[in-house]
Amino acid sequence: MDTDIPAVRVDVMRRARQLMVDYAYAIDDGDLKRWPTFFTEPCLYRITTRENVGKNMPLAIMLCDNQAMLYDRVEAIEQANIFEPHYYRHVLSDSQVSAYGGNLLTVRTSFICVRTMLDGAMLLFAAGCYVDEIEIDEQTCLFRSRTVILDSSKVDTLIALPF
Amino acid sequence: MDTDIPAVRVDVMRRARQLMVDYAYAIDDGDLKRWPTFFTEPCLYRITTRENVGKNMPLAIMLCDNQAMLYDRVEAIEQANIFEPHYYRHVLSDSQVSAYGGNLLTVRTSFICVRTMLDGAMLLFAAGCYVDEIEIDEQTCLFRSRTVILDSSKVDTLIALPF
Amino acid sequence: MDTDIPAVRVDVMRRARQLMVDYAYAIDDGDLKRWPTFFTEPCLYRITTRENVGKNMPLAIMLCDNQAMLYDRVEAIEQANIFEPHYYRHVLSDSQVSAYGGNLLTVRTSFICVRTMLDGAMLLFAAGCYVDEIEIDEQTCLFRSRTVILDSSKVDTLIALPF
Repeated sequence: MDTDIPAVRVDVMRRARQLMVDYAYAIDDGDLKRWPTFFTEPCLYRITTRENVGKNMPLAIMLCDNQAMLYDRVEAIEQANIFEPHYYRHVLSDSQVSAYGGNLLTVRTSFICVRTMLDGAMLLFAAGCYVDEIEIDEQTCLFRSRTVILDSSKVDTLIALPF
Repeated sequence: MDTDIPAVRVDVMRRARQLMVDYAYAIDDGDLKRWPTFFTEPCLYRITTRENVGKNMPLAIMLCDNQAMLYDRVEAIEQANIFEPHYYRHVLSDSQVSAYGGNLLTVRTSFICVRTMLDGAMLLFAAGCYVDEIEIDEQTCLFRSRTVILDSSKVDTLIALPF
Repeated sequence: MDTDIPAVRVDVMRRARQLMVDYAYAIDDGDLKRWPTFFTEPCLYRITTRENVGKNMPLAIMLCDNQAMLYDRVEAIEQANIFEPHYYRHVLSDSQVSAYGGNLLTVRTSFICVRTMLDGAMLLFAAGCYVDEIEIDEQTCLFRSRTVILDSSKVDTLIALPF
């Protein structure tokens, strides 16, 4: 049984994956000013939980649908985080393509995120998956939408973090 | 020093990897009815521990060698899990090829699995590696055997889970 | 926005990644005698922390700059570990290329490492990234330097481990 996913050209998949990887390193570097630059305008960025998705509830923990909202978010985080420094480390598993057509690629990608506080304590911070719509053509490779689905519904107040 | 692994065609490796990825997402989705469809008939599915492998002990914690046993397993799990809902999230590292010839590819793949309970508690549930024999030709890409080698010997009774 | 990383030939990237993967499996297998064989001579192997890097402090927790030092390290570890057996499991995320020219590829790669003690206890042991300079040409694919940057500054005394 080979899967019946749409055939995606190797170079298209590689560029899409590169976008996800650059995004993850930017977040982990704390280089939040780069965060909005990974999205189209308008865009959709949402954080929700697996429980909500399972119940078909449209509620999101966070929702931004344009670049200005993303930049506001960055500013809020940078102010909030002054007193609580910590590091993140995302590890991505392979992506699974669910649709591909026109210049839009829809994929999901499992991830685990570890948080390390400055005193050295390490914590399994989040596990979940990204569901991404990536706009990809000769010039562009950006998230049109990124939905973060967290496995846990007990969400830390530091969720301010863009995942 | 380049490694002396057998040369595996890029498209063969990509299809094998796709099989592992689809398998992981099916398990994490709780879509257990798809689980047996990833195997040939007959097949071999085993869970064992690194300690046993190190001692050259052939004991397995679980062993299924045909599709009917896999389907029985799914039924048992679905009944057992009614009262204890939880989510799994597998993250795979790169695969390492150990043999390739005829239509059979032998690879191993490190993984980490995180479990999240419905109350939100997250747990590092398992770490280990898969040793897989994948039957792969123009029509087919399926596990002839999958051996799950867990690093920990303290195995949860919920091991009912197919890893 | 496509990233402006240098274009790296697909086969070059694949060989570099294979080096990292073989390295990780050798460590996780406890096959430490292979460890020095992944490096050029002379070479540079360093372990440091993200906090040190952030403060631009050149201090390393460990530094080896030739093969003899690496082999000494292996011997020390094998003696130290006799009384405290445990397993490691590394999971690598995708690599990000930062430079490529001549026969030298510079990349970084996020990782998580889980430690399992023989009594079965599992621990999130380390998270961080590798910054690697890989010497790669038709004959060779080896680390000229590997810098392990740990997210945590609270470093276990068993750090004897090559990461």
